[in-house]
Amino acid sequence: MDIELLRSLATPNDTKILLCVVDGLGGLRHPETRRSELETASIPNLDRLAEESVSGLTIPVAHGVTPGSGPGHLALFGYDPLRYEVGRGVLEALGVDFDLQPVDVAARGNFCSLDADGRITDRRAGRIPTEETAALCEGLRQIKLPGVKLFVEPVREHRFVLVLRGEGLDDRLAQNDPEREGVPALPVRATAPEAQPAADLANAFVAKALKKLAGQARANGVLLRGFARHPDLPPLPDVTQMRAGAFAVYPMYRGLAKLVGMTAAPGGGTPLSQLQAVRERWDDFDFFFYHYKKADTAGEDGDFRAKVEALEEFDALIPNLRALEPDVMIVAGDHSTPALMASHSWHPVPFVLWSRNGAPDDIYEFSEAACRAGAVGIFPAKDVLSLAMAHAGRLLKYGA
Amino acid sequence: MDIELLRSLATPNDTKILLCVVDGLGGLRHPETRRSELETASIPNLDRLAEESVSGLTIPVAHGVTPGSGPGHLALFGYDPLRYEVGRGVLEALGVDFDLQPVDVAARGNFCSLDADGRITDRRAGRIPTEETAALCEGLRQIKLPGVKLFVEPVREHRFVLVLRGEGLDDRLAQNDPEREGVPALPVRATAPEAQPAADLANAFVAKALKKLAGQARANGVLLRGFARHPDLPPLPDVTQMRAGAFAVYPMYRGLAKLVGMTAAPGGGTPLSQLQAVRERWDDFDFFFYHYKKADTAGEDGDFRAKVEALEEFDALIPNLRALEPDVMIVAGDHSTPALMASHSWHPVPFVLWSRNGAPDDIYEFSEAACRAGAVGIFPAKDVLSLAMAHAGRLLKYGA
Repeated sequence: MDIELLRSLATPNDTKILLCVVDGLGGLRHPETRRSELETASIPNLDRLAEESVSGLTIPVAHGVTPGSGPGHLALFGYDPLRYEVGRGVLEALGVDFDLQPVDVAARGNFCSLDADGRITDRRAGRIPTEETAALCEGLRQIKLPGVKLFVEPVREHRFVLVLRGEGLDDRLAQNDPEREGVPALPVRATAPEAQPAADLANAFVAKALKKLAGQARANGVLLRGFARHPDLPPLPDVTQMRAGAFAVYPMYRGLAKLVGMTAAPGGGTPLSQLQAVRERWDDFDFFFYHYKKADTAGEDGDFRAKVEALEEFDALIPNLRALEPDVMIVAGDHSTPALMASHSWHPVPFVLWSRNGAPDDIYEFSEAACRAGAVGIFPAKDVLSLAMAHAGRLLKYGA
Repeated sequence: MDIELLRSLATPNDTKILLCVVDGLGGLRHPETRRSELETASIPNLDRLAEESVSGLTIPVAHGVTPGSGPGHLALFGYDPLRYEVGRGVLEALGVDFDLQPVDVAARGNFCSLDADGRITDRRAGRIPTEETAALCEGLRQIKLPGVKLFVEPVREHRFVLVLRGEGLDDRLAQNDPEREGVPALPVRATAPEAQPAADLANAFVAKALKKLAGQARANGVLLRGFARHPDLPPLPDVTQMRAGAFAVYPMYRGLAKLVGMTAAPGGGTPLSQLQAVRERWDDFDFFFYHYKKADTAGEDGDFRAKVEALEEFDALIPNLRALEPDVMIVAGDHSTPALMASHSWHPVPFVLWSRNGAPDDIYEFSEAACRAGAVGIFPAKDVLSLAMAHAGRLLKYGA
């Protein structure tokens, strides 16, 4: 359901919803065993949850579309990822736990190497170490630009994030990175007239950065890409009338939750310490987003065995999660990350929803194949939230 | 996924996709045997393909909508048939292998019988034989109209196609056929001011045709319907970055493929000779559309047995099709044509997709009932192409 309809039907209640997102949850069957990661793992708690719940498969974005982390999570938070986009620069800023504001324009930056004529000789400045990038960012942070605040944060190796903060900045900017070597960097170009002031600021930043970096052997240039503004989404607490808290070890996922107006608990620690944080904050929120990362990491590494183990680790958390006694508990994924593909994929993702009012279907196993036959069927991930709210008695009747 | 998103995600690869369309594929169970045509047929090769593939059912247009050939194929080519329409006149022109151009306006024509006062006495001119229509068309082709080229092609019995070719012609024209007898033909009427020049041309054609036909006993009038312009669709090779080839015995299907910018191989011959043509052109294309007609013909005839046999004939082609070693192979239908209904129908259509990266589901049989439980579920036919491209490694990730 779209955000406008959700807003019009949302009604308060004293129920609690726990959304557990297993990053990269879905997988593919190993050709030798004909079993997927979930079918290989020993996950008695998830199997029992499936037995007592309704199951299905979510389509994160659309048939055949492989989502990044942004669209994958936005959908689970109820936002159609084809309508609400989160740009590259924004995600990069979220990934370093930068507290992005609605007026910010963020870009991904690379330090690069330029020759005496200003031609790019290495787009990654020899992949300088992160510490060197941190020191250089310290220098660039001193740059002053008229009318805006400016932030430069190191990421990893030669990468950094640039954030321009100022009223009325437009993000319709084309990158200055020509994406090849042997040519000079381009000017940052406005792709809409309204973005000219932002383009001027970005070019002024680049000019001043070049002066500061003039003495550097390798990192004497900067390339900027993926300019994007805070997407300014309708806040989930307004739309749903739920106080919403996010619990995640990694900054990217806390950041995505903050984009939709959730309150993010401090990050870091372990899945277990984040679960402990959920328990401590149980009275403070109505909606809890709990993120578990390792399944995706193992899938991206193409490590079938490690993904199986990650799923088993997550399974062991289930009794603790259920002990919180939420009124609605969901286990879902933002997308599939089959170890056999060593990447995100488009495949539908297992989904299970437990609720006090839920009539369980006849699914006794938590897996891609079993969930396919579940009561919810194959459905768009952006409908997970409305389904959860329905089960939590938080949606009014539509029409008379 | 819509065409704009598909275009933004498409990326080149060296993989090949083979889309086999069995016209009128889906059927209904015979009340005596409780088996559908597919369930009755002996189709071991399709069953094996289903075993090694993912299965599902496609909804050609929408629940309850019975598609014509145009919408049924457009959907499988990735075009939402509710957004992109192919008019009747255009389909009629494609059906006689007319090489329709983007500036053309086409109409279906009937020869009819008029009395001395110009009133219609027979809307089909006594269903004159095709050869007589061909000779009459020869005469009408001599008509000259200012600023346009004019084509008149016989179809079958009393039917013909009229094509007006000229820059800026608008197809918003109401038919001159009153659809009843005892009254005169109407003038062709513009339903938008921009179409007035085209209306004037059509009426001039009718006036000149009446003069030429004045001596005819039966076919002394013409009725024009279904005015339509070439739909000017975004070309599939541009959108998908795939070279696309069409292989079909019948002109209608080559014509539909050409409408979306595919290269059509010469028509005619047999399903086997068209398969041979696919083999010969294997290096020339990335995407192959292979059309098999007989299942639909038998279904339209209401001949259950003939449809079973057609499916068995198609099944025998499968090993040859698989021997081409495409990276992705699909068997789908443009719509169902249940022999029990002797017509096209709205029922979802069996679908199977084999891919090198595909993890098979637990479906061991190619039929309406078996495919329903497959991994892809019941899904819109317009998503077949994006799914195929995902499996072929031809779609980028959406978002970061």
